[in-house]
Order: sequence, then C-alpha cells, then structure tokens
Amino acid sequence: MQGVTFNGTGDIRVAEVPDPELTEPTDAIVRVTLAAICGSDLHIYNAGTAFGFAEGQRLGHEFIGTVEAVGSAVRGFRPGDRVLSSCNVADGTCVYCRENLSCSCVSYSAFGWAPRVWRHGGPVEGGQSEFIRVPLADGTLHPMPEALAGPEHETTLLPLVDVVPTAWHGLVRAGAREGHDVVVIGDGAVGLSGIHAAAAMGASNVVCVGHHPDRLEMAARLGATEVIASRDEEEIAARVQELTGGQGAHVVVDSISSTESMATAHAAVRAGGGIACLGMDHFMGKTPEVNWRDQFLRNITITGGLVPGKGYLPRLLELVEAGRMDPSPMLTHRLPLAEGAEVLMIPVLQS
Amino acid sequence: MQGVTFNGTGDIRVAEVPDPELTEPTDAIVRVTLAAICGSDLHIYNAGTAFGFAEGQRLGHEFIGTVEAVGSAVRGFRPGDRVLSSCNVADGTCVYCRENLSCSCVSYSAFGWAPRVWRHGGPVEGGQSEFIRVPLADGTLHPMPEALAGPEHETTLLPLVDVVPTAWHGLVRAGAREGHDVVVIGDGAVGLSGIHAAAAMGASNVVCVGHHPDRLEMAARLGATEVIASRDEEEIAARVQELTGGQGAHVVVDSISSTESMATAHAAVRAGGGIACLGMDHFMGKTPEVNWRDQFLRNITITGGLVPGKGYLPRLLELVEAGRMDPSPMLTHRLPLAEGAEVLMIPVLQS
Repeated sequence: MQGVTFNGTGDIRVAEVPDPELTEPTDAIVRVTLAAICGSDLHIYNAGTAFGFAEGQRLGHEFIGTVEAVGSAVRGFRPGDRVLSSCNVADGTCVYCRENLSCSCVSYSAFGWAPRVWRHGGPVEGGQSEFIRVPLADGTLHPMPEALAGPEHETTLLPLVDVVPTAWHGLVRAGAREGHDVVVIGDGAVGLSGIHAAAAMGASNVVCVGHHPDRLEMAARLGATEVIASRDEEEIAARVQELTGGQGAHVVVDSISSTESMATAHAAVRAGGGIACLGMDHFMGKTPEVNWRDQFLRNITITGGLVPGKGYLPRLLELVEAGRMDPSPMLTHRLPLAEGAEVLMIPVLQS
Repeated sequence: MQGVTFNGTGDIRVAEVPDPELTEPTDAIVRVTLAAICGSDLHIYNAGTAFGFAEGQRLGHEFIGTVEAVGSAVRGFRPGDRVLSSCNVADGTCVYCRENLSCSCVSYSAFGWAPRVWRHGGPVEGGQSEFIRVPLADGTLHPMPEALAGPEHETTLLPLVDVVPTAWHGLVRAGAREGHDVVVIGDGAVGLSGIHAAAAMGASNVVCVGHHPDRLEMAARLGATEVIASRDEEEIAARVQELTGGQGAHVVVDSISSTESMATAHAAVRAGGGIACLGMDHFMGKTPEVNWRDQFLRNITITGGLVPGKGYLPRLLELVEAGRMDPSPMLTHRLPLAEGAEVLMIPVLQS
C-alpha cells in the first residue's frame, strides 16, 4: 500500500510500505478515508532527524476511517464501523486517561511520530497511509455518530481529531467558560480552531489577532466577533480593552507562544485570567520569555499543552450534531494520497 | 505616635509620625495590637528607592488590632471591634472583589507600600505603627471570631493576613484538593505556610524541600509528612516519585521561583499538575526560565500570584476554630514596636 514517509530532513515521499497487520489482540486495522497534515508535520519535514526519525518512518497522526479488522480482545469496534482516531494511542483505563489526560497515558504512543515517544512498544504507524494498525483500539478509537458517518461529513470531523480539541483543551485549561471574552493570537490552524472552539463554547467577545487577510476572513466565518490585523502590542491591547470594558480577556489563546506573542497575551489578558500557550516554537529552540511581574501582580495563569483529544470528542461531536460547530472551512484542499508529500511541502515554501 | 518608616535604601527607623485621622467617611482608625514583618519588607529595605519609596514612608501591611473610630459611612464595624486587616485596601464590591480577586480591586492600594501602587488615593499608611487609617474599612477589614478575639490568639491570627493566604491562594490556583500530593520548595515563611495550608486542606503527601534544619523541623510541626534536605534536583525528584507512586505531585508550591527552583518544580510535578510560583525574586531583576517543552508535553500549569487575602479569611478562620490550623509557630519573635526597625535588619544580615 501507499504511505507518506520520512526519508531524511527535507525529504518526504509517498512510498510503497508494508500493509499493516494485527499484531496484538487489542489492535484494529483502519482503512483511512481522510487524513490531515498538521503543523507539527512541518517540524518533521524541517528537522525530523533531530527528533529521532529514521528513514522510512511514516507520518500522519490525524485520521478518520473505517474499521477493517479487529483483534480478539477489541470490545468496542467491529469491521465496518466508522471511526475517528485519537492522535495518540491510549489505553483509556489508566489513571491519566480517567482524568481526561490521555496524552499522558501510561501506554501513550504517537501516530506518525518518532520512536522516542513510543511507550506502548513500536512500531506505531502513520495515518497518512491507506491503512493503519491502531494499537489499543478500544482506548484510541471513537465511533462516528451515525448521523455523521457519511463521506460528506468527513471534512467536518477530521479537525476534531487534533487541531480543534487542541484549542478546546487550551481554552478549558485556561479557565474559559460561556460568556467569557476570548482573544486568540495567531490565525493559523490552531488559532482558527481557537476562534471556532471559543465561539462554540459560548464566549462573548471572540477576538482574532492576525495579519493574513484571507485567514482573518475565515476567522470571522468561524465565529470571530472581531478581528485585529496588527502586530502592534499597544494597538491590540487598546482594542481589547475597549471591547472588554477596560478589563481585558478572561482567556488568551496564544497559538504562537513566542516572546512577542506572550507579551501581547499579557497585554490583552484580564487580571486573574489565563493564557493558553499552544505554539510549539520552543521545540525548535526558541524560548519565550514570561512577564513574571505581570504574571504575579495580576494573577495570570500560564497553561495549555499537548491535547488529550479523546476525552473531548463526545462534547465536540455533540456540538457538531447540534449545528454549533463545523470546522471544515479550515481544510482548504482535499487531494489523493499520492499528492500528500507534495502538499506537505507547499506550506513549507510559503512560511 | 511611633511608626516604622523608610528613610532611604538600607535605612529603616522607628520614628515619630502623625496620628492618623478619619479623612473619608468610609475610613476606620485601627489600634494595631500586632503587626508582622514580611519578606517583601526586605525588598523595601534593600531597594525601596527603586520601588518609589519616599523619605518618611511607613511600612507594614500585615496587622491586626482593635477598631478605634469609624467614619460615618462604615456599616460593618464599630469602635472596640477586634479585626484582621487585609494586606491591601479593597472596596469589596467591584467586579474583581466579587470574584475573590480583591488584590485586583479597582480601589486597590497596598498598606506600607510605595505610592505607585495606590489606586484609591493616598496616602495609605503602614501597619507597623501604633495606629493606622484603614480606607474602605467595610471592604478591607474582617471581624475576628469572638472565640479568637483574645490576645492569646494573636500570633495564630496574624499570619492569616498575608503569608498563609498567599500559600493557600497558590494551592487553590494550582488546583490543589483534598487527597492531593503537594511539594513545597523553600522553607521560608511562604514555604512553611504552604506546608501548613496543604496539610489543613487535607493533602495526602505534604513534602517540604529545603535546607535549613531548624525550618525543616518546623515544617514537620506544621504538617509536612516528609522533608527533603537537598538542593539536588534529581535526588528531590526521585524521592517525590517514590512517595507518589511514580507520578509526581499534583501541585508544587515554588516559594522561590528561580530558574533552579522552577526546574526542581518541573521535576517534581505530575503530568497535568500545577506549579504555584510565589517567589518574588523576579522583582529584583532575576528572570526564571521555564521548561517549555515539559510545560507543553505534560500539560503543566504555571500560576500563583499576589494574594486576595480577604476572600480566604472565612475558610481559614473556620480551620483555626476547628483546630486544624495554627500557624503561630512561624512567628519566632514578639517584640515591642520600638525594636521593629532593628528586627527588620536581622534577616537582612542573615540572608
């Protein structure tokens, strides 16, 4: 079968790879019907060797599909079931999974990532492939609601695997609630997901700070009540203060997490508020500085992190079924797998 | 009357100062019966001019006493009432006060601090004096429960004004609950308060990390279930892992908040846990570094900050009355006001 593989830094290819097989009784084989490219795939493209990637390693941790086969110990799924996968393997039963922190599951492994993050025992395959072996299927897969199982809903569901729950998780961790004011810094996929999640959560002001006109337009489609096309901290802060009765936002989602974006977040956040740091630039060696004086004097909470996607799926699917969530506009292109590697390179060239 | 005053960096004196007067109808005059010296008073001693202190400025933000007189608009207090003061002036009615964030009150001013933090309009006096004018008395003062109003309870109550609620607040913000494991880094007044607060909150493991034998002994008296006399990050982490079934502590109170203590906090905290940063060294120009990779991958929340003392007093007084809290052992010396300035210099010489 075909799969997207890493062949060295800057060298991603669609290649012939072995068909997956059931190797453990808790495995399922899933036929992938739609997979996404994540911003973190670009880190692999740019620096995969540094992350421990080996030649032939498969990519892709966001996928949905149809169960093809299950091991003898799988209880919750049968061949033919339509499923969303979590972006990581989790047993669903450990102390962390029970606390909705499946990203810290004792059996954690990441699909489409380097062996150093495999705890369950590798190899863990990638979802940008025709088929994939899903370890610990009962803990890792989630059934598609029947009303959403048709192919026409796939672009609505796929973002629920990683990018939307990433933003939702950041909002939850930073204390966002219905009626709160939320500012999102950055208009990339995580930022737009933050806008959409905040709107679906019932936030009052939902402010997108960015500087790409097309994405700010999409932010408005996805629920932003205000867009600020600026990189000027004072200008952004002044507008946020104006919108929030001089108080600032209860929660700021910082999808960039650089020293500059963190400074803007501090300028925009309300006393007692939370900043959800969802950017991963620090993985590339950049270390954002914290305004400790403001953190202390105004009781700012700095939080956010790796997504425990599984736990949020019931609520997110409910919102989709209720017509309050549809992140599909964020998926700008739908292409056959054969073009996967090429697509991966496009945003790299643009960045 | 006599009061402790700032007369330049490194020059703190007990001096003759004017008697306070009721200047607003919302004022009360309180006869101070016991006042404390805070670690932040040492910042004033060391660098008061940099903080905007002027000659003759009075010190002291932790005090309890007896109401001497009240303005015509004060509703909740009468002369003769025994009271604890909040360490800051707050109106008790603004949006922040209603959310238990009185330290961000729109009418905030700090007792015994420099004019730049006075929002209510100065001058705000200091509590290391015979008498003090308390602005916005209804929002700022709290009645002593009758059973605790005698002088024999003063050393139990005084730490509830600032240092104990500071630690309690850090624990709350970082998500601590009954049954949790808590590690406290530092064995100074905030650290010891963290131990005592965590124990009173019903934490399971209450671990004190420090390196002063006498203070670690006091930590044990105040509720520590384990003391670790070490500065070695790996040794501390190993012991914490051992005590917590390999998971780490739900909450770490970092009473130092340096790069080194933050690294220890990350090593000791559980995935999904919280670090309460309560140290103020960053006010002296030191900037702790954050382990962003760990923060992100393990979903660590970094929080803590200035204390909204008023809101916690009902619960803390309940715990005192129930015999579950008595922070009085932390007060090592009780001296007449005339010796206040000299006492302030002792810890400076020790540090």
